Amino acid sequence: MRILLINPNTTAAVTEQAAAHVRRLIPVEIVPVTGRFGARYIASRAAAAIAGHAALDALAAHVAGCDAVYLACFGDPGLLALKEVSPVPVVGMAEGALHLACTRGRRVGIVTGGVLWKPMLTEFVAMLGLSERLAGIRTVAPTGGEIARDPDAAIGRLAAACRDCAEIDGADVVVLGGAALAGLAERVQPGVPVPVICSVEAGARAVIAAAGLAGARPVLPATESVGLSEELAGLLRVRN
Amino acid sequence: MRILLINPNTTAAVTEQAAAHVRRLIPVEIVPVTGRFGARYIASRAAAAIAGHAALDALAAHVAGCDAVYLACFGDPGLLALKEVSPVPVVGMAEGALHLACTRGRRVGIVTGGVLWKPMLTEFVAMLGLSERLAGIRTVAPTGGEIARDPDAAIGRLAAACRDCAEIDGADVVVLGGAALAGLAERVQPGVPVPVICSVEAGARAVIAAAGLAGARPVLPATESVGLSEELAGLLRVRN
Amino acid sequence: MRILLINPNTTAAVTEQAAAHVRRLIPVEIVPVTGRFGARYIASRAAAAIAGHAALDALAAHVAGCDAVYLACFGDPGLLALKEVSPVPVVGMAEGALHLACTRGRRVGIVTGGVLWKPMLTEFVAMLGLSERLAGIRTVAPTGGEIARDPDAAIGRLAAACRDCAEIDGADVVVLGGAALAGLAERVQPGVPVPVICSVEAGARAVIAAAGLAGARPVLPATESVGLSEELAGLLRVRN
Amino acid sequence: MRILLINPNTTAAVTEQAAAHVRRLIPVEIVPVTGRFGARYIASRAAAAIAGHAALDALAAHVAGCDAVYLACFGDPGLLALKEVSPVPVVGMAEGALHLACTRGRRVGIVTGGVLWKPMLTEFVAMLGLSERLAGIRTVAPTGGEIARDPDAAIGRLAAACRDCAEIDGADVVVLGGAALAGLAERVQPGVPVPVICSVEAGARAVIAAAGLAGARPVLPATESVGLSEELAGLLRVRN
Amino acid sequence: MRILLINPNTTAAVTEQAAAHVRRLIPVEIVPVTGRFGARYIASRAAAAIAGHAALDALAAHVAGCDAVYLACFGDPGLLALKEVSPVPVVGMAEGALHLACTRGRRVGIVTGGVLWKPMLTEFVAMLGLSERLAGIRTVAPTGGEIARDPDAAIGRLAAACRDCAEIDGADVVVLGGAALAGLAERVQPGVPVPVICSVEAGARAVIAAAGLAGARPVLPATESVGLSEELAGLLRVRN
Amino acid sequence: MRILLINPNTTAAVTEQAAAHVRRLIPVEIVPVTGRFGARYIASRAAAAIAGHAALDALAAHVAGCDAVYLACFGDPGLLALKEVSPVPVVGMAEGALHLACTRGRRVGIVTGGVLWKPMLTEFVAMLGLSERLAGIRTVAPTGGEIARDPDAAIGRLAAACRDCAEIDGADVVVLGGAALAGLAERVQPGVPVPVICSVEAGARAVIAAAGLAGARPVLPATESVGLSEELAGLLRVRN
Repeated sequence: MRILLINPNTTAAVTEQAAAHVRRLIPVEIVPVTGRFGARYIASRAAAAIAGHAALDALAAHVAGCDAVYLACFGDPGLLALKEVSPVPVVGMAEGALHLACTRGRRVGIVTGGVLWKPMLTEFVAMLGLSERLAGIRTVAPTGGEIARDPDAAIGRLAAACRDCAEIDGADVVVLGGAALAGLAERVQPGVPVPVICSVEAGARAVIAAAGLAGARPVLPATESVGLSEELAGLLRVRN
Repeated sequence: MRILLINPNTTAAVTEQAAAHVRRLIPVEIVPVTGRFGARYIASRAAAAIAGHAALDALAAHVAGCDAVYLACFGDPGLLALKEVSPVPVVGMAEGALHLACTRGRRVGIVTGGVLWKPMLTEFVAMLGLSERLAGIRTVAPTGGEIARDPDAAIGRLAAACRDCAEIDGADVVVLGGAALAGLAERVQPGVPVPVICSVEAGARAVIAAAGLAGARPVLPATESVGLSEELAGLLRVRN
Repeated sequence: MRILLINPNTTAAVTEQAAAHVRRLIPVEIVPVTGRFGARYIASRAAAAIAGHAALDALAAHVAGCDAVYLACFGDPGLLALKEVSPVPVVGMAEGALHLACTRGRRVGIVTGGVLWKPMLTEFVAMLGLSERLAGIRTVAPTGGEIARDPDAAIGRLAAACRDCAEIDGADVVVLGGAALAGLAERVQPGVPVPVICSVEAGARAVIAAAGLAGARPVLPATESVGLSEELAGLLRVRN
Repeated sequence: MRILLINPNTTAAVTEQAAAHVRRLIPVEIVPVTGRFGARYIASRAAAAIAGHAALDALAAHVAGCDAVYLACFGDPGLLALKEVSPVPVVGMAEGALHLACTRGRRVGIVTGGVLWKPMLTEFVAMLGLSERLAGIRTVAPTGGEIARDPDAAIGRLAAACRDCAEIDGADVVVLGGAALAGLAERVQPGVPVPVICSVEAGARAVIAAAGLAGARPVLPATESVGLSEELAGLLRVRN
Repeated sequence: MRILLINPNTTAAVTEQAAAHVRRLIPVEIVPVTGRFGARYIASRAAAAIAGHAALDALAAHVAGCDAVYLACFGDPGLLALKEVSPVPVVGMAEGALHLACTRGRRVGIVTGGVLWKPMLTEFVAMLGLSERLAGIRTVAPTGGEIARDPDAAIGRLAAACRDCAEIDGADVVVLGGAALAGLAERVQPGVPVPVICSVEAGARAVIAAAGLAGARPVLPATESVGLSEELAGLLRVRN
Repeated sequence: MRILLINPNTTAAVTEQAAAHVRRLIPVEIVPVTGRFGARYIASRAAAAIAGHAALDALAAHVAGCDAVYLACFGDPGLLALKEVSPVPVVGMAEGALHLACTRGRRVGIVTGGVLWKPMLTEFVAMLGLSERLAGIRTVAPTGGEIARDPDAAIGRLAAACRDCAEIDGADVVVLGGAALAGLAERVQPGVPVPVICSVEAGARAVIAAAGLAGARPVLPATESVGLSEELAGLLRVRN
């Protein structure tokens, strides 16, 4: 199986970190792609909105020959648009991790970096329809980008946030969210009384589980456009 | 009062149609802006995702000197991102029209063109928190773009859809949605037993009502980026 | 435009306070009316139930010649009944303020006087369908009536409650509710990190925005009655 | 046990019909009271709003010496206000009938007379928090008043509506609602494949069940008033 | 009236305690039955799942000649299955107590013993459709079984939990839940500012209220089985 | 990876059918177990309640040495109880299939055999928290057991139901539910315009995805019991 892993921010190091983590755990071929334009790290609504376009741009350029697409940004900017245009199944990191977490606990907590993600993820979880399963969302001040640069400094804060999810919010499973946090779940787990799930790993496992469940696809209206990449304009123009 | 009216699709005629309709009804200065890139008409999730970026790009370039922003596309792509970065209040067409419709009826119906808009608008209404007030959404097959090109041909279908909203879905007010449908509400109203509200007009009235209610704004994290317009990169970089 | 401003409690000073505040801000003609019977101040369910009847009684007596009705009591007793019988649009103070606040923030907080208003307003917000947008409701012990008599003593408490809405409940906009609190929002705003909206002003702006969006009205069943004012009995008897 | 049965419309025949039906079925003493002012029959929001005041007026005048109060109007106008001021437990006809119906079936249907009751009852059920248990509400055109005058003519329509609740809406129990429909459930039951519950009887049984579950009562703010009956003004003034 | 009282745990002393408490308060004939297999006390999901089967087994063996069934375990394991197969109405202790509590207060709190009951009861209340009426659930560490063995030691904790329901969670009525807590509500009430309702009593009163509201019953598919009691296998086989 | 596949009904042929289907598709070792007591086929609440106990009984007897548990009955009787006691992760057929279906479509339809499953699955989906993602549930008259005996006769009905899910209920993906329907999805897919997902396959893929995401487990209260299998009594007694 060949999976297109899209990191819609513009920092290649994050793409590599996520791809490497997935490859260590799961025997699949990963085709990693970094966003062509947009914010270095996504920690605001504006950056996420731009990232949605960048993700479409990346899919249009690179999906040929792939079996599935992994939108590898926790919060999944552009997720539904990608699913709409993609010729193969698309699963988002937060989407996949949260659905799998729901099979491991009744009340799911989320811990991530960057305070603006709390309202954004609250809305994302509502869009997934999983609000009733959400125990709470706790963010630590360093954004994903800052955590990627110095993970050791963040471990303590992340573990404390996970404990609070369990002890205060009543979570019985916690998703540690963010491509930049790949590999940190196992370092955070000791001292946290409930399972801590790595979103990069869980999202990838969800992609693989979903990849086989293919089927018919609806016909979409063709539309003309200006100023987009050739591939993306092409995707919008010919819609079978 | 000076209102920046952003049409995030790339068809200037639609921008002019909406701006002209607002000017006819309300004594305010309109600064109309058309999207710099993206689909000609927005009738799919992919087009809407790209439009969110185009709307940010337009705001960054043109908001200086304006008192409020009117996101003039029914379905409001990029609405929350715009509100996040804008130095002045932002109201979306569907957002404003729906909130005002809620003061005119208990159960609000929506009629618009383009079948893909039904799921998109259902999610948008849920994001507004107004799902309980929604009687139903009915689309006619011609997209907003097609209706703009030949409105006469669409009037009958639109009126029938509005009637069905009232008689089948139980709506006691209907919002006729779409910049391309500006001015059609009064032609559709006869034969529809409940008020039909023009989204272009209602959205504009909501912008004006909200514009005076200013206040403090939160500090957002600065972020670097690549490949964006200078103005938009600037907005993301300096966040007071 | 001529707006009938109904204060359904029986304290004329409150009616004047609200009307004066609106006139200062908006160039419209206000026809102020005070309830003919009922509690001096509305701070309980029983008082609100009686006020619903008093509001209908006032509308029946005074709506002729007016373009819209402003139910100027935060909590809007009798709102839906007024909308049902009124020949012109009716908007309530809380209704209008809350819908407009929704365009200025994602999570709306409410601060008002009188502890019994919390459950009453929680139900009112649910009736509006806006429960998901509500961050929280905080009341201060002095009722609206007591605040009206000594506003200076209440400013500190109101500001603290607004701050708690923002910092504890996560509100990014707060509605300061109550006809008796007209004019206090600007005194409360300093020291509160999110916009504080005056319900008297915001409600009035919503009335004006909605007033133009008229339309067809349903036919209601005629009913006989006893013991009501002539005008109200007449409204119930002839229903076009 | 002595139960104050309040009929908040102004038609004594309806009060007697309800009281007689309860006495036939349950060995309790009924003190029947008819509204002192308001609509002859309650079939609109305006009539219901006035009835809320009339119910308070009736309670204030007659509750002394009673053990519980039965608000005998399906839709329960003024219910929460009555519970707030009453020295003894208050249960409404729709409230009691619906809660008991919930113990007899998973999905509860409601059938009543008067088309305006559908939105009003939908909101009432939401206020009870029972929206998820509601299969649907079906009204027949004759209002409760008209049915009271000629029940035979209505039986067929009521039975058909009950069948539709079961067969179309999926109800496994139906509440036949309305004081004016007392005694009709047994005539409607044949030909309806699910239990049809008389709201007058079920509401009364709920009053009796709840009456023993007494307890502490909160202190309410005293308020002055004008233009109310002496007893009601007294209830609002002295609040222990 | 003859009521089959099923205690689905396997401790006869609890059955007797509940039956005795009901007999003291209400003049009905109780037929008490204890579970034939399963956990001594039900304080986990596994124990509750087994208890559902034990309750069916008990009903099949003992329902003949009874007019109604009282599932006397707070949390009502097997409730919907019992209602499905029973020839007479079935009401559960938590079901009945909660519906009646809803008529005595707007926000209902629950206090019981055994920390695992909190998530289980949260789901049960959601199944009843009453989540919006729930103020909160507070458990004390001793399980129902432990409280039954030493009630005096638990009174203080139970009272404190009830107070917290009222003062922190905003409950205006509290249900003290559990067959093993029969008779403790009156000892807990002093010092709790809102009514504390005994679930054993309230559930019984609900059974009696619902018992008269009989009606048609659906036809169920017959099914063969192995390894069940003769009576239960018979119930599954012949389904009229 | 070794998966314990529990079929909680008492028909070994169904167990074999499900196990064989999984083995054909996925390279894992399956340990199939059939319920030791209970209904031959589960098509009612009573049968499901008994099956919950049978599933616990099966897990207690056979989980040693397995890496995960697949509760292979669509509707997952006893799911939460199994998760509570199991030393390894447990995923249910409907649970897993629905969560994965959510990644393949926005609105999920369910088709299965046996009319009583509709209300039961509606409640199950609500318990999963996925009600907002559910387009609808359609059942065909033959129960799972009957379909297993003559699948050819059922194909037409199942396909029609799937089409109605898509065309009437608006589903963009349909889960064909039931162990007895293993292998039928591919025969039903032609002529259905949206993907039809086999619940047996999808559930298994979800088990595998979740199996790796292990973690800490809570301590549960020990409880004594009577009349249970030795292994199950042991599970309830020693709870680490």
